[in-house]
Amino acid sequence: MKRICVVIGSRANYSSIKSALRAVDQHPELELQLVIGASALLDRYGSVVDLIEADGFRADARVHMLIEGETPVTMAMSTGVGMIELPQIFSRLDPHVVLTIGDRFETMATTLAAAYMNIPVAHTMGGEVTGTIDESIRHAVTKFAHIHFPASRDAAERIEKLGERPETIFQVGCPRIDLVAEVLERDEADVNSHLFDTGVGDRLDLSGPFVVMSQHPVTTEYGEGERQITETLHAVRQIGHPTIVLWPNPDAGSDDIARGLRKWREQGKAENMHFFKNLPVDVYIRLMRRAACLVGNSSSGIREAGFIGTPVVNIGSRQAGREHGDNVVHVDHDRAAIADAMAQQQRNGRWESQSTYGDGRAGMRIADTLAGLGAVEVQKRITY
Amino acid sequence: MKRICVVIGSRANYSSIKSALRAVDQHPELELQLVIGASALLDRYGSVVDLIEADGFRADARVHMLIEGETPVTMAMSTGVGMIELPQIFSRLDPHVVLTIGDRFETMATTLAAAYMNIPVAHTMGGEVTGTIDESIRHAVTKFAHIHFPASRDAAERIEKLGERPETIFQVGCPRIDLVAEVLERDEADVNSHLFDTGVGDRLDLSGPFVVMSQHPVTTEYGEGERQITETLHAVRQIGHPTIVLWPNPDAGSDDIARGLRKWREQGKAENMHFFKNLPVDVYIRLMRRAACLVGNSSSGIREAGFIGTPVVNIGSRQAGREHGDNVVHVDHDRAAIADAMAQQQRNGRWESQSTYGDGRAGMRIADTLAGLGAVEVQKRITY
Amino acid sequence: MKRICVVIGSRANYSSIKSALRAVDQHPELELQLVIGASALLDRYGSVVDLIEADGFRADARVHMLIEGETPVTMAMSTGVGMIELPQIFSRLDPHVVLTIGDRFETMATTLAAAYMNIPVAHTMGGEVTGTIDESIRHAVTKFAHIHFPASRDAAERIEKLGERPETIFQVGCPRIDLVAEVLERDEADVNSHLFDTGVGDRLDLSGPFVVMSQHPVTTEYGEGERQITETLHAVRQIGHPTIVLWPNPDAGSDDIARGLRKWREQGKAENMHFFKNLPVDVYIRLMRRAACLVGNSSSGIREAGFIGTPVVNIGSRQAGREHGDNVVHVDHDRAAIADAMAQQQRNGRWESQSTYGDGRAGMRIADTLAGLGAVEVQKRITY
Amino acid sequence: MKRICVVIGSRANYSSIKSALRAVDQHPELELQLVIGASALLDRYGSVVDLIEADGFRADARVHMLIEGETPVTMAMSTGVGMIELPQIFSRLDPHVVLTIGDRFETMATTLAAAYMNIPVAHTMGGEVTGTIDESIRHAVTKFAHIHFPASRDAAERIEKLGERPETIFQVGCPRIDLVAEVLERDEADVNSHLFDTGVGDRLDLSGPFVVMSQHPVTTEYGEGERQITETLHAVRQIGHPTIVLWPNPDAGSDDIARGLRKWREQGKAENMHFFKNLPVDVYIRLMRRAACLVGNSSSGIREAGFIGTPVVNIGSRQAGREHGDNVVHVDHDRAAIADAMAQQQRNGRWESQSTYGDGRAGMRIADTLAGLGAVEVQKRITY
Repeated sequence: MKRICVVIGSRANYSSIKSALRAVDQHPELELQLVIGASALLDRYGSVVDLIEADGFRADARVHMLIEGETPVTMAMSTGVGMIELPQIFSRLDPHVVLTIGDRFETMATTLAAAYMNIPVAHTMGGEVTGTIDESIRHAVTKFAHIHFPASRDAAERIEKLGERPETIFQVGCPRIDLVAEVLERDEADVNSHLFDTGVGDRLDLSGPFVVMSQHPVTTEYGEGERQITETLHAVRQIGHPTIVLWPNPDAGSDDIARGLRKWREQGKAENMHFFKNLPVDVYIRLMRRAACLVGNSSSGIREAGFIGTPVVNIGSRQAGREHGDNVVHVDHDRAAIADAMAQQQRNGRWESQSTYGDGRAGMRIADTLAGLGAVEVQKRITY
Repeated sequence: MKRICVVIGSRANYSSIKSALRAVDQHPELELQLVIGASALLDRYGSVVDLIEADGFRADARVHMLIEGETPVTMAMSTGVGMIELPQIFSRLDPHVVLTIGDRFETMATTLAAAYMNIPVAHTMGGEVTGTIDESIRHAVTKFAHIHFPASRDAAERIEKLGERPETIFQVGCPRIDLVAEVLERDEADVNSHLFDTGVGDRLDLSGPFVVMSQHPVTTEYGEGERQITETLHAVRQIGHPTIVLWPNPDAGSDDIARGLRKWREQGKAENMHFFKNLPVDVYIRLMRRAACLVGNSSSGIREAGFIGTPVVNIGSRQAGREHGDNVVHVDHDRAAIADAMAQQQRNGRWESQSTYGDGRAGMRIADTLAGLGAVEVQKRITY
Repeated sequence: MKRICVVIGSRANYSSIKSALRAVDQHPELELQLVIGASALLDRYGSVVDLIEADGFRADARVHMLIEGETPVTMAMSTGVGMIELPQIFSRLDPHVVLTIGDRFETMATTLAAAYMNIPVAHTMGGEVTGTIDESIRHAVTKFAHIHFPASRDAAERIEKLGERPETIFQVGCPRIDLVAEVLERDEADVNSHLFDTGVGDRLDLSGPFVVMSQHPVTTEYGEGERQITETLHAVRQIGHPTIVLWPNPDAGSDDIARGLRKWREQGKAENMHFFKNLPVDVYIRLMRRAACLVGNSSSGIREAGFIGTPVVNIGSRQAGREHGDNVVHVDHDRAAIADAMAQQQRNGRWESQSTYGDGRAGMRIADTLAGLGAVEVQKRITY
Repeated sequence: MKRICVVIGSRANYSSIKSALRAVDQHPELELQLVIGASALLDRYGSVVDLIEADGFRADARVHMLIEGETPVTMAMSTGVGMIELPQIFSRLDPHVVLTIGDRFETMATTLAAAYMNIPVAHTMGGEVTGTIDESIRHAVTKFAHIHFPASRDAAERIEKLGERPETIFQVGCPRIDLVAEVLERDEADVNSHLFDTGVGDRLDLSGPFVVMSQHPVTTEYGEGERQITETLHAVRQIGHPTIVLWPNPDAGSDDIARGLRKWREQGKAENMHFFKNLPVDVYIRLMRRAACLVGNSSSGIREAGFIGTPVVNIGSRQAGREHGDNVVHVDHDRAAIADAMAQQQRNGRWESQSTYGDGRAGMRIADTLAGLGAVEVQKRITY
């Protein structure tokens, strides 16, 4: 049995790997080892660990590593705490491969710990282009990783240009699209009417056009978050549809965004808005399917929304450069521009589904590839 | 005044940046901030901090971060400790640029802490190709760095291929060559006759041909060190010249090498050998100038020795792929092959000086470039 | 000038030392060094650091050290992070004495770091008896401290019984009482009518009898917090007065208390209640002066309230064993018992002021004692 | 089965608990959980972990935590690293009791982590009096511990005076005496003639009178170590017997002692001396049985030597105040005084065995007590 160790550090991490976890877990030649850490352990971010265990997985280790503060200083420190704890865990679990996800600081900690320990690293979602520090983390992780599982053709090519050997690159699609395909397939019923029992704010009428808003901090524009979210809130208010607002993730700058949202509420401007810290992934997908527009800078606007056909207004630099389908309009942090783009997208209506980020079978391909791998050479060497 | 913060974590780090430190310190528009940490603080590695302060520099902060053990596990953990401490120091010093060196684990910690904190990172010695985990660290640091100071043309081109913007790449040469040029210039006198008052082992006669041996662990071949060093010791003994042996640096696997050396001594096979934990850099350079052969896997065999013209027998994968001059012969960890190559190099005699890694003015160029820089854009974006 | 370094880790820490900070700062022979860390740096806990700087003090260092989670596991880890950072800071500031406060985990980290580094440790609020892990922390800190500043006679005697030398024990009173005395003296005006512009919940009418509720987690009863707070909420609701509710501090178990409060609000039972994350200390004191009853387990019910004469219903084990005045009634976590005690206290009305914890001049005595100290012997030795 | 978790951080730790480990391991109602860390993992300190596993125990977790440097700063930092790692391990192992040993910084980290996590702490060797920071650590650990296993009557009484409840104090003797009793019982053969195959220095003739020297740094006299050891070396040289010298343990100041020893050797003054980094415990005991004198400041001079009857010259403050038998003479760090005392002890010859620190059955008593314990109340409360 080949032991595959996956480190999950956040809700987004989990959505991004869930279908691969299942495929690894069910593969006769693979044994899944699960390490859950960082915000995935915290009540404040919805106790993702409970969700994961409710899905039938078991945590082999839990690593607290988030230093409170959500500033650039604490993000660096949190990476450090992770690097003190993970080596001991990897020593104990002794995996054949560590599978790491995307471009978050937990990804960096996981990758460094494993690579330093001469454990082969497999990496999903490499080769893409975005803003924030994620852009650097992602490519740096590629330079440590021994096996690459990019989501798109474009990403696969970029990994090769970065000097990685072609035989280590497997374009599998994005496991998040697997979840979307699954949800869309079984989607007879309506969004649960109990939706608004959780979260805070007004109960919304979703029978007509409505908006989903999801905007995260940009670490490299630290300090700008409150202004940025306020521009978006003004635009959304001008459009006037019922709006579901998602809470930002715990990156540096998260507090600025949160403060902007709180002030908006306290100033009484949040009528016809409902705020969620988290939404179950299937609910989120079904909302995207029905939304008149998704606005903000979430990567789901680029990935899932392209497959679903949701009209998206993407704001600012966070997703800049990322490959996307026709469903996305880019604008700056400017309330008028955002409102214009939202109006334009509403006129367009829904888009055709596009498979830029996969066809719904990424998880299975990841498991099969890992099972089929021969010995991985630990010593890497750039190809040029 | 532009504040330039340099983090020095080892003796090798210091040699690799000393001429740039001096140039930054003396530049009217720059202010030098010095952070000294890791093995550079330790008695066991020759208290490099004292040497640095004797050279007229002052430490603005000291960071202990080495977890004892010199295993892959502790190397990862040490990076973590560094990442807990450095953010606080960078917060306090508030530098305009953090200048980081080469490809060691301290380099990774320094780079991550600075980049996460949106402080522009300048990096020396990027773009080269070698073995060990250094290969991955070096390229990963390039993906975080905002300003690149490669030593060679080849390295500069590789950095560009890695997707870095050409206007951020400054081929300046290697500051270690600056030190060499300086020492060679003023080199009238002989190597100090008190040389053998320090270190342990026989006092050697250096009037005839002699050998310098410097072999470090290869982290990605962890566990092989004792066997590897023993092969080299057999070859050196067979050649029969007086031999100066340098102690390994504190990477993962260092203990294996050290054990090999100790056993050799305890078995009474170390006649005509003298062992040093450290040598002052100028003494080392003068020894390289006179040595019949430098054997092992030190990067000085590639860099300094090429400029000096020292015959080098480079063993194993550690320097594999690194650009080098004609003075280097590559062999495997095999005593017969090593001895053959040493004999061949002795027949060749000294080589012509080659400027692959610079002309002796790298430090000055680094300072001038940093002083002349406009605002650095913190948000990076791959060029393809 | 004798350098006195104070480490402040929370809002409570600050109130507990503020008058001594001022006295040290103004003393001609003392230099104040201020390190601010843990929850005192965080937005979520009211950015105490800003408050401190608004009061005219300057932070010489800031130490993030809170690992998110507020569980027993993260509380231990946070102490560890503090111990990695503080030694470097103490090295740089090179204080003659480190002054540490009370019995929190930051106190433990501060004390250990200083004592290991052979820096004399002065400790306020030692020798008292309470519940939670604080009980052990407090006495353990006493065993490391070189100079003791207990608040009460009883505490001073207990420190001596613990084997400390009498000449190192200075009964100075509690600096928190200094603040109370000061506020009471200048208290002409009413509580600011803008009080309810911050916090959340109903705007309260404070012209009649009202209640202040402040209940914190008990680390040694981890997991019980939600049940415990709910009992108190029921009692308060039964009494029916307008109630000001303070948010719990960030110890292990804080989330349980917070969840209890949130559920209460979400169930619509929070009418006539207003919730604050923090209150300026002078506002809090003025509220205590007017409150019909203070209910919960805050140490302010024992210390400040005794001096002010506020009727207090103290619940559960957290303050058990602590010396207190006649103004305190003890009850278990039982809604009926709590409500009965509240009713009884309301019948009693206000109490006479008692000086168990000092007379309002503790800060000045601390500064004078520190200034007058000769050389402190670093090596401690138990007296029996 | 009651799970008993023991954390071992050094060779001395292991000797101090070995007989209890065996007794716990063999007890039908107890399950032994073993965590090995700090210097016990390191080659440089003799890979105690290998020794432990050779004795038939299995490590359930390994925790690297020593920050290199052996200064007061790094000792504090190492405690911090331990506190980041241990909580995760205790979470996983979920012990009923954590058993911690003596007064080292690992003891402090172990105790804090367990106590914060509401795991009952049992503590051996509490209540004694010594010098160095150990004095404070020991009593502080007592204030956190729930169950006390003092070695002597005097220590047991002191623990009670410290405010611990009598029913939690079990005077069991010192497990190190168990090992001594065992070795003495089966001691037919001579000290192995291969003794001097390891270590460095002259091969000694042990058929006549010889000396054992073991001197450790005093953390609270940091910086004095080199001078202190040199005084002892002069005295030993003056006495002129063959001398076995033990290397110092890795506390702050260890480097100073080691430097003193190295210089002595390099100056050629070490004739008739042999230096060991470590000795197997049974060899050490047999040497003590035959030695004309044990000189230095090792606690073995107080504990084991009293039971064995070895004449001891104890130097300086490290053991000051510790209860001891008639076999110990105390002197200052003064070569003449040391030599005089050694001469006097040699005239005395061997002493009667005394059972101050136990009768050889401590381990068994510890296991039986732990097995027989009812539920331990986690909340501590001082008795006065």
